Parts: sequence; C-alpha cells; structure tokens
Amino acid sequence: MIERYANKQITAIWSDKSKLEKWQAVELAVIMAREKMGIFPAGTHQRIAAALESHPFDADAVAYWKAKDKEINHDLNAFLDERLRHIPAELHQYWHKGLTSYDTEEPAMALLLKESLQQIELPYRTTINLLLELAKKYRYTPMLGRTHGQEAKLQSFGKRCLTWLKGLQCSYELLIQAAIFANQSKLSGAIGNHQGLTMAEEAKALEILELKPFIGATQIMPRIIYVPIANALELMVASLTQIAEDIRLGSRSGNPIMQEPFGKKQKGSSAMPHKKNSITTEQQIGMLTAARNFAQMLRERVITWEERAIEQSCVERIAWPDLFAVVMQSFKNMNKVLEGLQVYPDNMMQEIVNSRGCYASEDAKDWLKERIAPFGLTHEDAYRIVQVASFIAHQIPVYRRKIRDAKIISYEQADGILRNTDTLLISVDDIIIITEIIEMANLRPVEELDIEQATVDAWNKVISDIFDQPENQQSWNRLFTIAYQLRGEAAIFKAFGIE
Amino acid sequence: MIERYANKQITAIWSDKSKLEKWQAVELAVIMAREKMGIFPAGTHQRIAAALESHPFDADAVAYWKAKDKEINHDLNAFLDERLRHIPAELHQYWHKGLTSYDTEEPAMALLLKESLQQIELPYRTTINLLLELAKKYRYTPMLGRTHGQEAKLQSFGKRCLTWLKGLQCSYELLIQAAIFANQSKLSGAIGNHQGLTMAEEAKALEILELKPFIGATQIMPRIIYVPIANALELMVASLTQIAEDIRLGSRSGNPIMQEPFGKKQKGSSAMPHKKNSITTEQQIGMLTAARNFAQMLRERVITWEERAIEQSCVERIAWPDLFAVVMQSFKNMNKVLEGLQVYPDNMMQEIVNSRGCYASEDAKDWLKERIAPFGLTHEDAYRIVQVASFIAHQIPVYRRKIRDAKIISYEQADGILRNTDTLLISVDDIIIITEIIEMANLRPVEELDIEQATVDAWNKVISDIFDQPENQQSWNRLFTIAYQLRGEAAIFKAFGIE
Amino acid sequence: MIERYANKQITAIWSDKSKLEKWQAVELAVIMAREKMGIFPAGTHQRIAAALESHPFDADAVAYWKAKDKEINHDLNAFLDERLRHIPAELHQYWHKGLTSYDTEEPAMALLLKESLQQIELPYRTTINLLLELAKKYRYTPMLGRTHGQEAKLQSFGKRCLTWLKGLQCSYELLIQAAIFANQSKLSGAIGNHQGLTMAEEAKALEILELKPFIGATQIMPRIIYVPIANALELMVASLTQIAEDIRLGSRSGNPIMQEPFGKKQKGSSAMPHKKNSITTEQQIGMLTAARNFAQMLRERVITWEERAIEQSCVERIAWPDLFAVVMQSFKNMNKVLEGLQVYPDNMMQEIVNSRGCYASEDAKDWLKERIAPFGLTHEDAYRIVQVASFIAHQIPVYRRKIRDAKIISYEQADGILRNTDTLLISVDDIIIITEIIEMANLRPVEELDIEQATVDAWNKVISDIFDQPENQQSWNRLFTIAYQLRGEAAIFKAFGIE
Amino acid sequence: MIERYANKQITAIWSDKSKLEKWQAVELAVIMAREKMGIFPAGTHQRIAAALESHPFDADAVAYWKAKDKEINHDLNAFLDERLRHIPAELHQYWHKGLTSYDTEEPAMALLLKESLQQIELPYRTTINLLLELAKKYRYTPMLGRTHGQEAKLQSFGKRCLTWLKGLQCSYELLIQAAIFANQSKLSGAIGNHQGLTMAEEAKALEILELKPFIGATQIMPRIIYVPIANALELMVASLTQIAEDIRLGSRSGNPIMQEPFGKKQKGSSAMPHKKNSITTEQQIGMLTAARNFAQMLRERVITWEERAIEQSCVERIAWPDLFAVVMQSFKNMNKVLEGLQVYPDNMMQEIVNSRGCYASEDAKDWLKERIAPFGLTHEDAYRIVQVASFIAHQIPVYRRKIRDAKIISYEQADGILRNTDTLLISVDDIIIITEIIEMANLRPVEELDIEQATVDAWNKVISDIFDQPENQQSWNRLFTIAYQLRGEAAIFKAFGIE
Repeated sequence: MIERYANKQITAIWSDKSKLEKWQAVELAVIMAREKMGIFPAGTHQRIAAALESHPFDADAVAYWKAKDKEINHDLNAFLDERLRHIPAELHQYWHKGLTSYDTEEPAMALLLKESLQQIELPYRTTINLLLELAKKYRYTPMLGRTHGQEAKLQSFGKRCLTWLKGLQCSYELLIQAAIFANQSKLSGAIGNHQGLTMAEEAKALEILELKPFIGATQIMPRIIYVPIANALELMVASLTQIAEDIRLGSRSGNPIMQEPFGKKQKGSSAMPHKKNSITTEQQIGMLTAARNFAQMLRERVITWEERAIEQSCVERIAWPDLFAVVMQSFKNMNKVLEGLQVYPDNMMQEIVNSRGCYASEDAKDWLKERIAPFGLTHEDAYRIVQVASFIAHQIPVYRRKIRDAKIISYEQADGILRNTDTLLISVDDIIIITEIIEMANLRPVEELDIEQATVDAWNKVISDIFDQPENQQSWNRLFTIAYQLRGEAAIFKAFGIE
Repeated sequence: MIERYANKQITAIWSDKSKLEKWQAVELAVIMAREKMGIFPAGTHQRIAAALESHPFDADAVAYWKAKDKEINHDLNAFLDERLRHIPAELHQYWHKGLTSYDTEEPAMALLLKESLQQIELPYRTTINLLLELAKKYRYTPMLGRTHGQEAKLQSFGKRCLTWLKGLQCSYELLIQAAIFANQSKLSGAIGNHQGLTMAEEAKALEILELKPFIGATQIMPRIIYVPIANALELMVASLTQIAEDIRLGSRSGNPIMQEPFGKKQKGSSAMPHKKNSITTEQQIGMLTAARNFAQMLRERVITWEERAIEQSCVERIAWPDLFAVVMQSFKNMNKVLEGLQVYPDNMMQEIVNSRGCYASEDAKDWLKERIAPFGLTHEDAYRIVQVASFIAHQIPVYRRKIRDAKIISYEQADGILRNTDTLLISVDDIIIITEIIEMANLRPVEELDIEQATVDAWNKVISDIFDQPENQQSWNRLFTIAYQLRGEAAIFKAFGIE
Repeated sequence: MIERYANKQITAIWSDKSKLEKWQAVELAVIMAREKMGIFPAGTHQRIAAALESHPFDADAVAYWKAKDKEINHDLNAFLDERLRHIPAELHQYWHKGLTSYDTEEPAMALLLKESLQQIELPYRTTINLLLELAKKYRYTPMLGRTHGQEAKLQSFGKRCLTWLKGLQCSYELLIQAAIFANQSKLSGAIGNHQGLTMAEEAKALEILELKPFIGATQIMPRIIYVPIANALELMVASLTQIAEDIRLGSRSGNPIMQEPFGKKQKGSSAMPHKKNSITTEQQIGMLTAARNFAQMLRERVITWEERAIEQSCVERIAWPDLFAVVMQSFKNMNKVLEGLQVYPDNMMQEIVNSRGCYASEDAKDWLKERIAPFGLTHEDAYRIVQVASFIAHQIPVYRRKIRDAKIISYEQADGILRNTDTLLISVDDIIIITEIIEMANLRPVEELDIEQATVDAWNKVISDIFDQPENQQSWNRLFTIAYQLRGEAAIFKAFGIE
Repeated sequence: MIERYANKQITAIWSDKSKLEKWQAVELAVIMAREKMGIFPAGTHQRIAAALESHPFDADAVAYWKAKDKEINHDLNAFLDERLRHIPAELHQYWHKGLTSYDTEEPAMALLLKESLQQIELPYRTTINLLLELAKKYRYTPMLGRTHGQEAKLQSFGKRCLTWLKGLQCSYELLIQAAIFANQSKLSGAIGNHQGLTMAEEAKALEILELKPFIGATQIMPRIIYVPIANALELMVASLTQIAEDIRLGSRSGNPIMQEPFGKKQKGSSAMPHKKNSITTEQQIGMLTAARNFAQMLRERVITWEERAIEQSCVERIAWPDLFAVVMQSFKNMNKVLEGLQVYPDNMMQEIVNSRGCYASEDAKDWLKERIAPFGLTHEDAYRIVQVASFIAHQIPVYRRKIRDAKIISYEQADGILRNTDTLLISVDDIIIITEIIEMANLRPVEELDIEQATVDAWNKVISDIFDQPENQQSWNRLFTIAYQLRGEAAIFKAFGIE
C-alpha cells in the first residue's frame, strides 16, 4: 500500500520478517508435536527453538534469505536453508521432516490472517462507541428521514446513528463467522495425502498453533476457506462507507445538517478560499472501491489446477495486506469524522419546517381514512387528499413563479433577479403546511395531478364536517407533534441498550 | 433480460431466429464468394439462396433445429442439417464446404454486434439533441457549480448540460472506435490455418458481409477484439448515469433545483402521499452496475485454451444481449428524464443567494492579492482574508446559535423549538455577503481558524485604504456580477456550436 | 436467464405471480398477527384470506396488476389496489394498515430467497452422493497427483474425489450460515422507526412467516444482509467448477485419464468427425464467471442513500434469479458429468509409469538423508542426488535427442521424421526409473544443473556402500510400492465415513 | 506495489518527487504560455524556471512539502507554498495565477500516464521480436492444434506463435488508440468555465506540454478519458497471459511439448526433488487477475458528483502505479519465459502419432463426401464413416481393456498391474490409424455410437470400390502429409512478413 494509506501494524504483519517468523513458528510446532508424541527425542524442540530464537530475523537474516531465494527461486526452501545455518548438525534431521512447503505456508497464512484480524478489534470498538455516544446525544433531536433523497418522515438523528451502528455490527458478525471458518489448516503433505505426517501429528501441531485440522486438502487449502474473510472485510468497509455517504449528503451546502471536521489551518481549495470540502467522507467512497476489488482479486483466484498450482499466490501477496490496509484506513477515516462530527440541530429543524407538515403525511392519510369512511370515501380518497394538500403546500408563491417561468436571455436580466434577494428566500409567510390546508378544507386542483374540481369540492365538504368536531381538531394536531412522530423510537433505543 | 427492462429490438436481434438468419447469411456469402471466384459453378448461390429463402426461419424451422440440437448436442451442426432439408441434393456438396462451425459463428457474431450497435444511434442522437436544447435554453440561467457537494462558483445550467453532453460524446467516440476494431472476422478453419478456405476466399466472403479479414486467428477470434465494445458500452452507460446522479442530487428536497418528471397519476409511495421520488435516475445508478458487470463477464473470459475452448460461449450468450438491453434501458430512462426535466431557475438563484457572495471568492482573492501587495501583504494574506470573510458570512445568527447549542432532552423541547418557525428560516436580514464584509473591512477572528486579532486588524487597515478609492469599489462590485462570473462561457458554448 | 440455461423452478419462484403471492402472504401475516394480538377483530384474517384465496393470481389478475403499475408507476401500490377489488369494503381498513411498501417487499424478498435456496438441496445432495460413490469405487485406483500440472506424488482417484467433495461441503456450510443470517426482516415502516407497527406486531407477523425481526433497519434492510448468500452461491459454483477444471485437464487427448460423457448421437465438431470435446466442463468455467459477476452486481449496490433509495432494486431484479439459475445449471452440468464420468485406470497407470519412479522422490530423499548422514553427507546432498536421478530418468534417448535438436526446414523433412513412428513412441526399454539409477549408483552430471563430476562420484560411492546391505535394498524398494505411497489415505477415507 | 513485483521505472514515475516535478512543469508551461501571449512580461518564465530548477525536489523539498500537506491537508497547496520559497517575491503574482488545483493536477496526470506508457514500448518490442523469432524458427515444426484440449488438426508451432503475436499486437493497437484519446487535458478552472484562463491560454499552455485541450470539462476531466488506457492495459496483460496459459498447458508432464526455463540452481519443491514447476506462467495467471481488478477499480470510480468530488482520487493513487507495475511484471515474466523457452519437436511429433491420423479427419471426410456421392451416400455418411474410424483407431487393445475394466480392490492388485510396464505403454503395434482403417474398409460398429452392422457393411462396400482405384489410394494418402495439412500456412506467415 502506498505510504499515504498504509497502516503500520498491517505493514509489519505482512513484512518478510513477520512471514519468516510465522514459518518458523509452524516448523517448531511440528517439532514440538512430534516430541510430545514421542516421535522425536525429548528436548529436541527446546534445543532447536533456543538455537533459532538466538538468531532472530534481523536485517542480515532477511538479506541472506532473499539472496538465497533469488538463487534457487523458491522462498520457502531459502528460509529452510537460512535457518539450518543456526541449527546444530545433529538436529538437522528433525527440521522440516516430512513436510512440503505449503505445510509450512498454509498454517502461517492462517496466523497472518488472524493477527491482521486482531488489528481491527480496537478501531471497530472505537467506531461502535462513537456511534453509541452520538445516538445517546441526539436521541431527542429530530431530523427529516429521507428516502430517495426526498423528505420522508421524522426520526431522531440518534436513530439514524443506530442504523449505521447496526450495519457495522452485522458486518462484524460476518467477520467473526468467517474468521472461525478460516481457523482451519493442514499439514498433510505435497498432495494432501498424509505421507509425511500422520493425521494425529497434524492435529497435534495445529493444536499448538491454535488451529483446527482441515481434512480433505490438496497441497493447499481450498481458497474458499479464506474468501469469506475478504467478503466480510468488504462488507465492513461498506458499512463504514454507508456512514460516509450519508454524512456527505448531509453536508451539502445550502443547509448542511452535519459536516466532517475541518482543521484550523486547513485549506479547502487552492482557488476558492471559502471551501470546506467533505474530503474524508469522499475518500471513503474510494476506499470501498479499493476494498471491493482487492476482495474480488481473491475471489477470482479461488480455483487451482488439480492438487495445486500457484496462480493465486501473487494475488494473495498483493491483495491481503492491501485489503487490510484499506480496512484500517477506513476506520481511521470514519473515526476521525465521527469524533469531530459537526451536527447542526437547527438546520435539521429548518429542513423539517421546509417539509411543511408532509413528514406526517402517512399519519394524516390513515387518520382521514378512518374518518372519511362513514361519508363513503375510500382509502384512495384519503391518499389523494393528502397528496393534493402536499402539492399545494409545496407550490411556490406567485412572485417566485414569475421568476421560475421567466425566459432568461441575458446575464443582466439574471443579475436583476438575483438582486431582489427577498424574492429568493422563503419567508415565514410563504410557509403553508398541510396541517392547515386540510383542516381548513382548502383543497383545490393542482396541475401535477388529474383531479377534477368536483372531486375536490366533495372532499372539502367532508373534511369541513369532520373538523367541525373539536376533538378531531385536537387529535389531528397531535399527529404532527414530534412525540407522536417518534413514538416508535423508544423501543428501538432500548434494543440497543439506551433507555 | 427480464421483461421489465427488455428492449424489443435487442431481444429480436439476439433471438434464435435472428442468429440462424445470420448463420445463413455467412454460409451464403461463402458460396457467393466462391462462385464469383469461379470455384463454384455459376448460379450456385442463386439456387441455394432461393431454396433457403423460400423456407424462412419460422416457428417450425426453429423447433426442428432445437430438437436436432438436443439430439446431437451441437447447435451449428443442427442448423446445417435443418437447412440441408431445403437444398436440392445435387447442391449439398457446396453447403458449408471446408468450413468449421466457428467460420460461420464468428462472422455472424460480428453481424449481431453491428446490428445491436445500430440500435444505439437513434436514442443517442435523441439524448444529444435534448442536451443541446437544454444547453441553449439555459445558457443564461446561473446556478451554483458544486465541487465536493459544496458551493463553488457560478456557471450557467446550460454549461452543466454541455459537460454532460461532452461526456456522452466521448463515450460515443470510443464506441465508434471499438466498433471499427471489431469489424474483423475470420473464415480460416478449425484451428485458423486456412485448410478449408484460402485467404482469398475468406477475404471475398467477408467483403460480401462488409467485414475485414483478421489474419492470425485460431478457431476463433481472440476475444480482445470484442471486449472494447463492452468497455465502451459500459462507459456510455456511465456517461448517462453521470447525468442521472447530478439530477438526483439537484432534486433533493429542501430546495430542489431540478426534478425528473412525475406522472399525473403516479404515486410516490404507498405510505407517504406527498412523495415525488427520483426513481428513474436512481434506477439508472443500478443500470450502471448491471452494465459494468455484464461487461466484466466478457472481460473475464478473454482467454481460451490453445486453439480454442468454449468457456466464453455461455457467458457471451448471457452477457451481450443483456448488456445491450441495459444500454437501451439507460437511454430510455435518461431520454424520459431529460425530455420532462423540471428546472427551477428561482431555486438555483436561491442557492446563489445562500452562498453569500462566496461564489466569487477566487476572483476576490486574486483582486485583493494585487492590491494588497504594495502594502507588503502576500498571496497567503489575500487567501486568508477571503477565507475569514467567507466563514463570517456563513456564521449563524445568535438566536440560531442558541438552538444549535441547546441540549435537546425531550420531544416537547424539540416541539417548542420547531414551533418558532421564524427562527428556523433565514431572513433577508441574516444574509451577510463577503462583498460587504470585505468592503467594510469588517474582518474578525473566527473560531474555525487560528488567526490572531492583530493580524485581522492589520488586514482591515489595508482594506480600508484600498476601498477609500472609489474606482476600487466599482471594480470590486463588478467581480460579483453574473456577466463577470460567466465571462468564460461564451467560448465554451461556441465550441459546441451555440452562439 | 436465457432459455438455454434457465431453470424451471427458479423461473417460477421469481415470476410476477410468485412475487405477488409472497406479497399477499406478508400482508396476511400482518393481519393474522394483529388479530392474534387483539388489535383486529377475530375473524378478520380468515375473511380476508378466504376472499383473496378465491381469487388467485391468474393471468387476469397479473394483467390487471401490470396495467395498474404502468399507470401509477408503483408496483406495490398496484398490487394493493388489485387485491382490494376482492376484499369486502368493510375490511379495507385492515388492508396494508400502517405498512409501507417495503414492509411488504422485504419479508417477501426473504421468502423468495429461502424458496430459491431450497431448490439447491436436492442437486447438492446428488453431487455429494455421486462424489462419495466415485470415492468408494476408486479408493484403490492409483493416479499421479499433479501440482503445477506436473507429476507430483501418488494418490488414489478416490482421494481426489474426496477433495472435490470437501470443497463443495465447505461452500454448503457457508451457504447455510448465510441463509440463517439472512433469515431476518423488518416491518418497521417507511424510515424504520416503527410508526405503523409496534415492535411486538412486527415480531409476531415475522414469526408467522418464520422470519426473525431485524432491529435497526431504515425503510429497507441493509443489503449486507443478503450479500453473504450471493457470496456463498458464488463459492458453491466455484467448488463445482474446480471439479470441472480438473476433469477437463484430465481429459486432454494423448493419454486422457477421465472424460465427460459423450452422447450416442452427439457430434463433436462440424468439421472434424473425430472430436469428443469437453464442452460441459468448459461451459462450467463460464458459469463461474457468470455467477461471480451476478454476485458482484449485488455486492456493488450494497449502499443506499440515507433511509433508502432505489439504486439496488433493478440490480436485484436482474441478478438474483439469474444467479440462482446459474447455480442450478452448474449442478445440472456437474451431475451429468459425474454421473457419466468415464474413468480410465489404465491410463492413470500409464501416467505413473511415465513418471519413472519420481512419484516417490520425497520418500527417496528422506530415506537417503538418514543413510548418507553417517558418511558426512547432508540433507542438501540427499535432495540433489534424487534431483539428479530424476533428471537422468527423464532424459530422452539419443535417437530422440537427434529429432529434438534437428532444425526442421521443410515439411518433407518433418514428414520423414513422423513416418518413423517407433522413434516417436516411448518403448519399455527407454523407461529408466530413479529406483534403479540410485540403487545402481548410476548418477552422472546433467546439463540442467551445476553439479561437478567429483561430487557425483562421491555420491555414487556412498550409495554403493549403502546398497551393499541387502536390507537397504528391500526397504528402498518398498518405498516405491503403492501401499507405501498411499499409507496416509485410509485415515482420510475414514474421516469421510468410508472404511 | 510490493517489492517482489515492483518495477523501478514505474515506482520512480509515480513517486512524490516525480509528481511534484510534473506539477512544476504544468505551472511553468502556463507561465511560458502567458509570456508568449504577451500577458506576462518577457523573461518571467526564464526567471521563475531558473529559480525553481536551482532548487530541485530533493529529500528536503519533499519533506517540507509533506509537512505542509499534513498541516493544511491539501497537497497541491502545500506544493505551491514550497515552491514559492524559491521564487523572488516580485514574481509571486505570476505563480499559479488563475489556476485551481486540478488545472495543475490534470495535465500532470496526463504526463504521468504518458511517461508510464513509454515504459511499455521496450518490453513490448522485445516480446514481439521473441515471438517473431520463434515463429521463424518453428515454421516447419508440426504440432497438434488443440481445440477443447483435444487433438484437432495440424499446425506448425510457428503458426501458434503468430496467433500469440497477433493478440498482443491487437492489444497494443488498442493501447495506442487509448493513449491518443487520453492525450487531452484542461486548464479551465475550478468548475471548468474558464474564469481564470481563457481558452487561448489553456490551448497554448497545453501545447507546450504536448497535450490537446478538452472543451467541456468540469473541475476535472471526465474519468472516461483515462479508463480506456486501463482497459487496454488489462487486455495487453491478457494477451501475455494467453501465451502463459498455452505454455503451461503444453508443459504438463507425461509428454511435455514445451517448458518454461528452469534455473541451474533452482529447486522446484522443498519436498519433491524431481519437480520442475511452471511457476512463472502460473504467476502470470495471477497477474491478469491483478490487472483486471486494478482496472476495475478505475472503472468503478468513473462518476463524480456534479463539478467534481474526490471519490476517485485515492483509487487512482493506488491503482494506476500498481496496474503499470503489473503490466511490466507481466512482460518481464513472459520475456523470460519466451527467451528461455524449451521446445520439444519430438514430443510434438509423438502427440501427432498418438492422434492416429485423426488430425486429417476433416480432409478425409470431405474427400469421401465427394467420392461416395455417386454411390448414393450423403455428407452425413461421410461424417459418420470418419467418426467411426476415429473411434476405432482410439480403441484400446484387449489387454489394456482388461485393466480398464478391472475392479481394483487393493493396493497389491494395483501394484501388480503397475509392474507390467509393457502393458501400460502404447507399442508401435497398437497404433492403428484412420488412414488404414478406411482404406482397408475395416469399419465396424462401435459402442459409443448408435450405428448398425448393416450400415457399416454398406459403407465398407462402397469404400472398397473407391480404393480399388489406385489414383484414389494415392490422393488419399496425400491428405495425411504435413505439406498438405499445412498448405494454408505460407500465406499466413507471409502476412506477418515471414517468407
């Protein structure tokens, strides 16, 4: 991974040094297993381990190994030779005995994956905690839920945070499952038929490495063992990216409801000094693309010829460390964003005002449905009544309509319009809400819909009758309160442990 | 392709009937070529063609062919047998002579692709025209250009349309190139070494089919010949989807600046009667995903074993017709949207007002840079002056700040805030623009930036001196006019033929 | 899916009719749940269900629904209207009460996926059984294991079948996990905040549908709930394709060791009558590409805007049914191939003969390592001794070498060589095996390796000494027996229940 | 890219240093353009260029830049500041004047791509030459062409090399086209409307950089400009991988017809000393997967929001250098393999012998078709005659059949069979060729086909009559000569300039 997005721990885990250490761990586990089973003399493991551990993989050892690899074109053999330098000659016979390269490499691979997965724990916990804190903090802060980018219904911003959190939790659950599934390995020889080690030796050695034996391997594990980890990591990045996408949508200028943090010396643009750009959340979109396609590389190389070929090897060398780096960068991005998230409840309120009561359109429709039925009107009528009211509420004032319909044929004309700032802002007086349109029986035909005057008249008549009853007025108005709109949320918060 | 997104012409082109017709066309072209070259007796082509054309591929012929295919498990052989039924016995010797299946199938494939590509011409022209019309219509209608979703600078909506148009034109140019590249085929036998037909016969037959010979084939054409078409189609869909994405961003509720059309009897939601959802542009996002991965199927099967194997065949049967269907559906989507596009110049103006003069921040910075230099201030100072002014301009009024900072701990409290509608709308009085902040030398430290009072004071002093000169005031104000902001656009429109 | 690869059951499950039925099932489950909870009057469910069930989704109902959808551009609303035709007016109030479209669609989607997954059970069991039968039948039939396409060590063909089987079992295990994970759904309203149904109603209704509630949805389930199914299906197809790839490798002409079945009236090629092509296993390679990219479509649309947008909808309509169709076709392919698999044990034996004892090179090396140590030779010497012997064993005879080194400059010259058939076949006399080369101490330098005569002489001397001891001869020869080579397999077969 | 597959030149081109140099080149080009146009005073460019060139991007400059970037979170701005340190204050006004970051970055990106593309020239020429040399050398060396992995017809190995070469040439042609297409760039400001530079200034500056202006950009170029390069690179890697795949197929042990080179000290396996594995060609398969998915990353980020967002930036930083590295590694792999390719004409001949004359089955069929027609037999009869003869020719001898049909129930039994080496090798006497079967009228029913004794008898009778004529015998035998089989190749070689 390029320096800009690299993660120190991940880089270390997938370094040559670390791989050589894992290989050695596997070799030593086999020796220990055989010693425990009485196949090798007592003390063998201790003597070899001591010899090797006094020669850790420092720069010299790694350099020796690399040179040897270049000479014989076989990295595992080069490792074996390098290590043999430090093992007393009389113990050479116990070294790599009955093993093939991939008996060493496969469990080592499993260990590398495990270690990489452990790196995710901490940033994951951080994100979960940040989201829980936000959920608690904004439990009572109302905002417009949006579907299709359009105003839908009310929710609290806290609830939005819980849906983000839930997505991330799901991806974590999938990762845990995948990690358990990949916790299998093999020491069954060059074509997997246990010529070098018995099944019992394999089981014992893997147990030492905290792995489980996989019966039915070829020289290698089938790659479908590892792919679920890549799949889950991709989905984990996707869950984080869902948060990023929602935040950058929320931060669009005009009336931003939240924004990622902006540094005190930051510059948004070389040309435009006023800019505060959502660069971290945007980068996160790209990170998902990277994650998806590193995972896809691994998915694409899941088949090998017969008892194995090496098509997948270079892909795994490239894709695993980079995939993990992308995951770590994604957490870094989103933890930074969530920690410094600017939230603007007033602007959220402004959005609600601009929705002109439509946030309660479903409740309004259901309320009407019940009450118009005795008058012979149907569900369809209730739907259309609220629809018409909504469209009326969103009609623009006449002076604004003129601007909209004007054919602008010069910059001067445009400047002229622009200078009349007050005609370009919505004033309180322009806010008409469906609550009142309906209560006042002020329905009328709208151009967007094919509805006749007579139909509208009939509706208005029924509505008038309904609102003649004061208890209906009261119950009607209650629909539009936040408490009523968010009546279902307490149970949701409770399900996430927030009372 | 499922019925919902199928295209009648594309379905027809990739039907069994159509494929059989193309196979026949290839067989007849070979016969004609050989007749012209004197290899077959004069009249052979005419006699065979007449015999076959009097037995078109009706339902019976197709059924016979399918049954035969099932029996012998070879669709091209089944076709040959079916046709032989209609050819006089004495002419059988001229039928498929010296050809292998893929001598027939490959040129037929090229013909199917060509025919499919022709379907794109008309909807493409329509989109181009719609975009040109929009560009002309909105040439003087200013809107905020947005980068990173944030207000950037002014442009006309017409210019935005030209960038959409240009993207689409690029993809079309790529498609034309790819189509020319794929206009090659082969009749060089079972392993491509011209045992059955000479190179001259191949060239003549392909010429009749309006194709060029490809020298160096195996039994089949290398698939990299066709992949560029898939690649270009994917990019064409991407160009259309860029338009869709921008439109659905523009139509987010609050202050939508454009919207896709909404039917007079349409319902936006089963639950929420007020909804007008951007469903066509959203569908288009999905269409790009479909296109990309149908193309990816073709990209993934570009290699075959040795002189050919059949790994790519099923993929091509699935992916080509579906990819073309997706392209046609994408044009259908976007032509519908562009034809009925609702554009709201007044709301575009409202966005400009809300940007508080920041749309000219770059010009302001450059203007200042020149004028503050004599006072010993640098480019960095000019940048920071405008940045500070911009951040001041976007500060919210005190009463709004209170709302923002309030800790909301109950729904009732939230309701209370919401009821004060006027505190939640921006009034004309709240609009402070950078034009004036700077002109009045009203700079002050802002919390978002690490800038000291002394620095600000020094800036204000210099600015005061500058604006003491009336010609500076005039020239400063000119920066903020639309004519000045859009001064570069005339040349762009001209480049697209719009004077 | 095109007819050629369509599966009747899958097509039916994803038909309009089936979807409408599932929608109805969800609506009825909600009504039943509320009746059970005392929210709706007793008998409501029975009356509505009876009314609807007496009007099943026949062609007329589907046509009505389609026409309505076209009119209002909302398929779920169209369904609601169509059904309302059959419900007594006084019960209309209970229909879809408090639900949003995706409260109906999401559980229905879960049901469609479940039903599709059930289709896989039977063909999966068939494959497993076919593989177990093959494993049993060929438990004692030796073949060359191949790594990197090269002769490696011996295994039974039965063991190869077990590795195929294990891969498939792993993918099945992943699928079951994914299916359980996806067994969650939601009825929590238009933005997921339980305004229409309480959590208790949701739980009860989902229980009737045999689903579990998912707390934390938006209008829809996060798509990462379903993607694991697509991922597992892809890996299942990959497991099947691994078998296909190995079979088509095994069937390469020259000395095929297995072949897919060939029909009694089948034609392999229109041009070359002698052909028996591996078309089914090759098609399977393409099927994996299709599966991978249908799954990738679903992976790519895992994020949506805020409380939902509809970008993923068209992709899911296309990709799910086609992905399942590809899975079913893959099972159909491989069950046909495995059921009719032609296995040639004699050719497998011929391959072993051609390996010239190298199949035991690892054992030979280990055996020597122990015995040469007392003579001061190392592991490296043992390795090189066997390597040299192997390269000698594979040297071609002198008369063959002449052909290899001849510069062929005309077809006539080539014909001349070809006519001497006996020089082009390996005769028994040419077979030299490493067993004997080493036992006879017949090592000599080979051009492929940098090894000096002196080294080789030293080796030969030591070897001679070793083989002077008769017990060494006997133990040496034992290494090359099949029983010794396959000594590890009994435990593997036992692990799969084959004694 | 990890060290193992990194390419020095590519790493250098995409280094920070190189990017900073390109940015500077763009800035200087703009200054030069304006000076040439009389906008900037004469000498400006020379003075600034001299100042900057005397401060190249050494480690210190890069470190300064990085620190600045970290502070202000904007890499281009950091570069501008770093450079300003070296420019005399009175010239600051000419630096980056009227430019936005992407006016600098986009042309620089084009330059980086161009420079990277140039690296491909040399290795590409090398591969082409290696393939041409092989084609010439093996122009008369016959081998079995294979379709579906099965023996098909004869070709020369030289011709196989030409098909490889042609594929590579096609991909190169596509790359050149894509490079020309991407040779466009922009200097049109923050939203592409030429506020900072006029179109004339843009054109002049780009001309200095040897780029063409792109009219219709936003802040950035639409990414579909660059994707075709990625697409072509993927196809180029695919062409190389086609060669790799064919070579590793050809090197399968048993009767390898070619092999990649094996180092003199190389080890094939840690366990099995006899191994010579096809590791380079196998790695190449993985390289294609890497290339495809790096390209796919770029394809996936082709859309941006409105006038630009930064989603694609991190993806491009990762994918472009790695994609080029993969291309270079692919050339390195294949040039090494082709340069040291071991070709075994004798083994190719052995394959031909094993095909038992079937390589001429098509010619045989066509020859018979003509001659049996007068006897009332059809094309179908000719096909089936040759098919039956082919199947007879491939029948195994009785003693071999016994082995095939034996049920092997113990390792000892298997050992017993294996010891009879001579029954496991094909002896000259077992070779029956279709040439003779047909000439001798020795057809008989075969179990693979549903053909009756009577039919076969009728065929034999007709055939006898035909071969009674000596001129038929002669003409028949000629079909099977190499000169006849390869009669079409001269023209192909000629088309590639090989006489």
